[in-house]
Amino acid sequence: MGELAALFAPERVAVVGATDREGSVGRAIMENLLADYEGEVVPVNPKRDEVLGRPCVGSVGEADADLAVVVVPPSVAVDVVREAGESGVSNVVVITAGFGETGSEGAAREDELTAVAEEYGMNLVGPNSLGVLSTRRGLNATFGPDNALPGGLSFMSQSGAFITAVLDWANDQGIGFKDVVSLGNKAVLDEADFVSEWGDDPETDVIIGYLEGIEEGRAFIDTAREVTQETPVVLVKSGRTEAGAQAASSHTGTLAGSEQAYETGLDQAGVIRADSVQELFDAARVLESQPMPENDQVAVITNAGGPGVMSTDAVGDSRLGMASFTDETLDAFSETLPEEGNIYNPVDIVGDADNARFREALDVALGDENVGCALVLSCPTAVLDYEGLARDTVELQRKHGKPVTACFMGGSRVEAAADVLDDAGIPNYFDPARAVEGLDALVRFREISTREYDSPTEFDVDREAARDVLARAVDRDEPRLGVEAMDLLDAYGIPTPQGGIAADPSDALELAEAIDGDVVMKIVSPDILHKSDIGGVKVGVPNEEVYDAYEDLVTRAHNYQPDAEILGVQVQEIVDLDAGVETIVGTNRDPQFGPLVLFGLGGIFVEVLEDTTFRVAPVSGTEAREMTGEINAAPLLRGARGRDPVDVETVAETIQRLSQLVTDFPAILELDINPLVATPEGAQAIDVRLTVDLDELAVDAGDADATDEPNEQTLVDTEPDQ
Amino acid sequence: MGELAALFAPERVAVVGATDREGSVGRAIMENLLADYEGEVVPVNPKRDEVLGRPCVGSVGEADADLAVVVVPPSVAVDVVREAGESGVSNVVVITAGFGETGSEGAAREDELTAVAEEYGMNLVGPNSLGVLSTRRGLNATFGPDNALPGGLSFMSQSGAFITAVLDWANDQGIGFKDVVSLGNKAVLDEADFVSEWGDDPETDVIIGYLEGIEEGRAFIDTAREVTQETPVVLVKSGRTEAGAQAASSHTGTLAGSEQAYETGLDQAGVIRADSVQELFDAARVLESQPMPENDQVAVITNAGGPGVMSTDAVGDSRLGMASFTDETLDAFSETLPEEGNIYNPVDIVGDADNARFREALDVALGDENVGCALVLSCPTAVLDYEGLARDTVELQRKHGKPVTACFMGGSRVEAAADVLDDAGIPNYFDPARAVEGLDALVRFREISTREYDSPTEFDVDREAARDVLARAVDRDEPRLGVEAMDLLDAYGIPTPQGGIAADPSDALELAEAIDGDVVMKIVSPDILHKSDIGGVKVGVPNEEVYDAYEDLVTRAHNYQPDAEILGVQVQEIVDLDAGVETIVGTNRDPQFGPLVLFGLGGIFVEVLEDTTFRVAPVSGTEAREMTGEINAAPLLRGARGRDPVDVETVAETIQRLSQLVTDFPAILELDINPLVATPEGAQAIDVRLTVDLDELAVDAGDADATDEPNEQTLVDTEPDQ
Repeated sequence: MGELAALFAPERVAVVGATDREGSVGRAIMENLLADYEGEVVPVNPKRDEVLGRPCVGSVGEADADLAVVVVPPSVAVDVVREAGESGVSNVVVITAGFGETGSEGAAREDELTAVAEEYGMNLVGPNSLGVLSTRRGLNATFGPDNALPGGLSFMSQSGAFITAVLDWANDQGIGFKDVVSLGNKAVLDEADFVSEWGDDPETDVIIGYLEGIEEGRAFIDTAREVTQETPVVLVKSGRTEAGAQAASSHTGTLAGSEQAYETGLDQAGVIRADSVQELFDAARVLESQPMPENDQVAVITNAGGPGVMSTDAVGDSRLGMASFTDETLDAFSETLPEEGNIYNPVDIVGDADNARFREALDVALGDENVGCALVLSCPTAVLDYEGLARDTVELQRKHGKPVTACFMGGSRVEAAADVLDDAGIPNYFDPARAVEGLDALVRFREISTREYDSPTEFDVDREAARDVLARAVDRDEPRLGVEAMDLLDAYGIPTPQGGIAADPSDALELAEAIDGDVVMKIVSPDILHKSDIGGVKVGVPNEEVYDAYEDLVTRAHNYQPDAEILGVQVQEIVDLDAGVETIVGTNRDPQFGPLVLFGLGGIFVEVLEDTTFRVAPVSGTEAREMTGEINAAPLLRGARGRDPVDVETVAETIQRLSQLVTDFPAILELDINPLVATPEGAQAIDVRLTVDLDELAVDAGDADATDEPNEQTLVDTEPDQ
Repeated sequence: MGELAALFAPERVAVVGATDREGSVGRAIMENLLADYEGEVVPVNPKRDEVLGRPCVGSVGEADADLAVVVVPPSVAVDVVREAGESGVSNVVVITAGFGETGSEGAAREDELTAVAEEYGMNLVGPNSLGVLSTRRGLNATFGPDNALPGGLSFMSQSGAFITAVLDWANDQGIGFKDVVSLGNKAVLDEADFVSEWGDDPETDVIIGYLEGIEEGRAFIDTAREVTQETPVVLVKSGRTEAGAQAASSHTGTLAGSEQAYETGLDQAGVIRADSVQELFDAARVLESQPMPENDQVAVITNAGGPGVMSTDAVGDSRLGMASFTDETLDAFSETLPEEGNIYNPVDIVGDADNARFREALDVALGDENVGCALVLSCPTAVLDYEGLARDTVELQRKHGKPVTACFMGGSRVEAAADVLDDAGIPNYFDPARAVEGLDALVRFREISTREYDSPTEFDVDREAARDVLARAVDRDEPRLGVEAMDLLDAYGIPTPQGGIAADPSDALELAEAIDGDVVMKIVSPDILHKSDIGGVKVGVPNEEVYDAYEDLVTRAHNYQPDAEILGVQVQEIVDLDAGVETIVGTNRDPQFGPLVLFGLGGIFVEVLEDTTFRVAPVSGTEAREMTGEINAAPLLRGARGRDPVDVETVAETIQRLSQLVTDFPAILELDINPLVATPEGAQAIDVRLTVDLDELAVDAGDADATDEPNEQTLVDTEPDQ
């Protein structure tokens, strides 16, 4: 148990604002607490002597409680919490609404609440919460209509109504919980705190939740990835779609981070993301009750060919593979199964199979070393006793210790068997696809819990040089930079073509002479976007023409746009784009997750095909290498159509160096290297565009104080300005 | 009712092979028929006087039945069917197994059965069938354990076991059927026959099915698209995935057509394809009971913000949009809803909403002309009576005539309300996503039923010229053709660059002189695949160098590969590939659906990105235009990044002309035009490769008799060979 132990298992609970007025929240909480709670309940109400037969105290300070539940009006709630803090109560659940969700006055009140809680180091749930419950000591400090059954799921929700609905349904389904918390406005405790707490709780088998937003993305990732090495976390994070994000924003005022960031962030965190309520509970139940498979290969044993084929399609949709049996298994099936059956997977033991044949086939399959898990799939027949099959399934699952799910198809014929399976924690569905999805969740968690996370590499970079380049943007008061910022990439060791920016024709010639062969020359101006259109690009300029070319380019630019600011002319070695693959490496900043790093197919395809993949920075070596394999065009990198594979390692290193750059300089809002041309010999950044936050740069490029709520993990630049 | 009326509603049923031996199929069928059937049941068994109290006749001819159910051993089954045919029985259900599913002997027996049925014009179900049932007259001519409840679904299945499972489950769920048929081996009647029959049946509201294969793809499309203008068809077609296709093939021996063909074919047929059993029945139920929406805009009315957001995500995943309310609606909501509610969609009427507020909000929303359908989404609260809300929902759905689904979240609290909703045919789920998917199925069917199918255009083409080009392949005994077949495209009016194939240097010069500017010259040889590698391509050859270039190319080719067959040198106008978008138009032949036409992004991206879309030929103008909009790279065609849009109409016409070509010449097995360069001015086929069936060409290129089971719709070439 972690720091929040007393929140879920207090000795004495004070209910501040307790009352016995019918229909009130204060009464509902008192009733719920008095029902099953093993500890003491102390109503706090200066206007009453007793509530529901319990003697009242006049103030929270007199209650000597280790948990205070606050149901007073919003105008006095902060004072009550302060008083609780002063009197040493370290756990508070603020049920009271009328805070951040109601406008600026409420938001100010919520800030005050947060400040008070921080001052006294209190664990505060809410405000605007349905409450918390924990079945361990029978604590139900919510105003909902139901208590929970005991079980191994711990559940957090940003919607209180969803909790009431889930509990009513779960009680009906026999699904039990360890702890349940209604997060409310998350003024102090948020999802990361509960993931961390439940990760340390041996009585929590699976952590589940409904979230509309995550407060601090990177911190959540780091907490969750540690927890998910042992304990599965399954979440519905709504706002997946544009419509949903709008609705979430208007519901809880959650500042919409990008779905891209949530998708990659939750994946990096090791969270199993459910898209619907059904997926959430299907995954939670199987993760709670079934063991982890040793491999992702499934055996399907069925007495019905058609449903067997359906289940195979579901396997094809999943991470699972159809197990290939050993010769011993095939021999055993050959001996025992009728000729019209199928000894290969899915194993069709045929419609006339009795219980003995079913049992033996399942036993053989589960005993096969190639088989990681099994689906028992059956249609009702006259010769098969479903309840017996259920008992055999339970027994064989235990014998072999491998995960099993069931699809006993049918209605009333299945009921008794379903009870047997349910009691033993073997999920059973009418639809074969759902039974396969259950096994898939186990395999997904196996993949997560065996992940090895490596720390981001810290490359030796020239931070000072980078700061100088950014300082130029401040000098020019121009938040958008282009090729004039190629030095920024050089400073961070990202390979660029030989060359530089010349301020006059002699400069240009000097640069050109240092380059083997002809050069490319481009006008450099933040005011001219389409350089080619105005003749602002010259390809294949020999040294003897460089001087004149410089003047010609500048003249053209001035003629085209007399007021354009001309920063000079870029002189660059010629890179044969056709010899490599044009990729893009970029970044943008998410309000919750901070810098996201992107890798994708570059050139004009970036916008149109959106063949890209993302990671929340900082990006480790493993993650960067994964990214290069995730895009649809990855075979081009690996050398499709007889071409040599490109130097993927250098591409991956470029991703990491960019990650380090944007982590070091939070003032970089967006940055795209497009194209990064990847060839068998390496990779070169041909062009760059970035947008910086001038105000933040002006304070001190790279100073931690200038960032909004910096993540602890951020590699902030703490060197003093030179 | 159609031709199969008597199959489902016979007056007298003969059971050939009836017996009262315990556990036998013959007895099970007798018992099922005697249970509810309104007509006469006549057991046929020469060895018995009576079966289950019914007097036997000695042969099917004596039974005077209009339906014969055959359960005799396979060795005599064909004779029984012949006898039935001779005595005028036109409907036969062959339960007997031991035919095509058991090997070559069985397959021969099945061919015989088919021949007999065709000889007598019999409607034959099976063999290897569970039987048929129809609730209209209480007919249960199956050997399954359950009868069906009456209802509006008609159900066909290629798996008999799946039928038994579904009936047991459906009886429990209160789901009823009109007709059910176990298709068995489909020796005579197949899915197209039942779709057609049920399309004509006013008592069938929705056609559903489980299929592992479709016998004649194009015929099925044409039948189903007519039916689906009125009656929804929802199918699980298994073998979607590679694993599933293998399993399906080993289960029913279905020759695996490509999933690509099924996906596009079922879509062209207007079939709603379900990926799982749950999807199948969720869609079927809502289509049976709810009206069609007038638009795809949904209103969500909820007392719970969180679930409201979840439902909005589900809307984002679907074809639906969140309705924008009229000003009148917004005014009405502003007046009646509390301030902390949300008058925009999803409408949050807040947790303290009573039945009156819920009712009024739903009434207002359904009355809004922008709203096509509604979701009633509710969490349990102390002030809300679920059963009353259910009654209001039913009443308001009827009042407004718009489709409504419900998500009353909870367990035991919902039961009574769920019954009210169920009785009224309003689907209700615990998961908001499933309730939204129900509305989505309605919108999908609305789109299907309002489709207008246009006939494929018949372009004026030079079929003789095309035949000549193909004849050359026969002469050369070479099934693979390349650019030497560009004339084939010319013959079908597909634009190609100016030029041709020269047989000698003078020819080449003549061709070059007819072309403006320099030319491209390429060696033409089926034996040389990588022409560029051996210097077999010259770009930008001026006229004065053409003569020498010809000789040089031929010399290089001979030096490189002395035994290579040289067909000449292609002389072609220069096409600037960078000025356009490289696309691919191609075709391949599917065993079930015939020629599939492909359109996609061309060049090296074809293989790597697989950005392609397909149609079963013949392709109409509407379909061809749709194809050009379906690929991910479609914005490139529409003029992304400030470029002019390409001539999409010419691309679409090229697709249609290729469709006509491969439909006219079934001997063309595969053909790819890659690239077809699309520019603002048109489109040009730069290169072509095809594979032909030499044997079929040898008989008569384009002769209908040479094709395997030609589709009636195929535009076969019936002109005599010249």
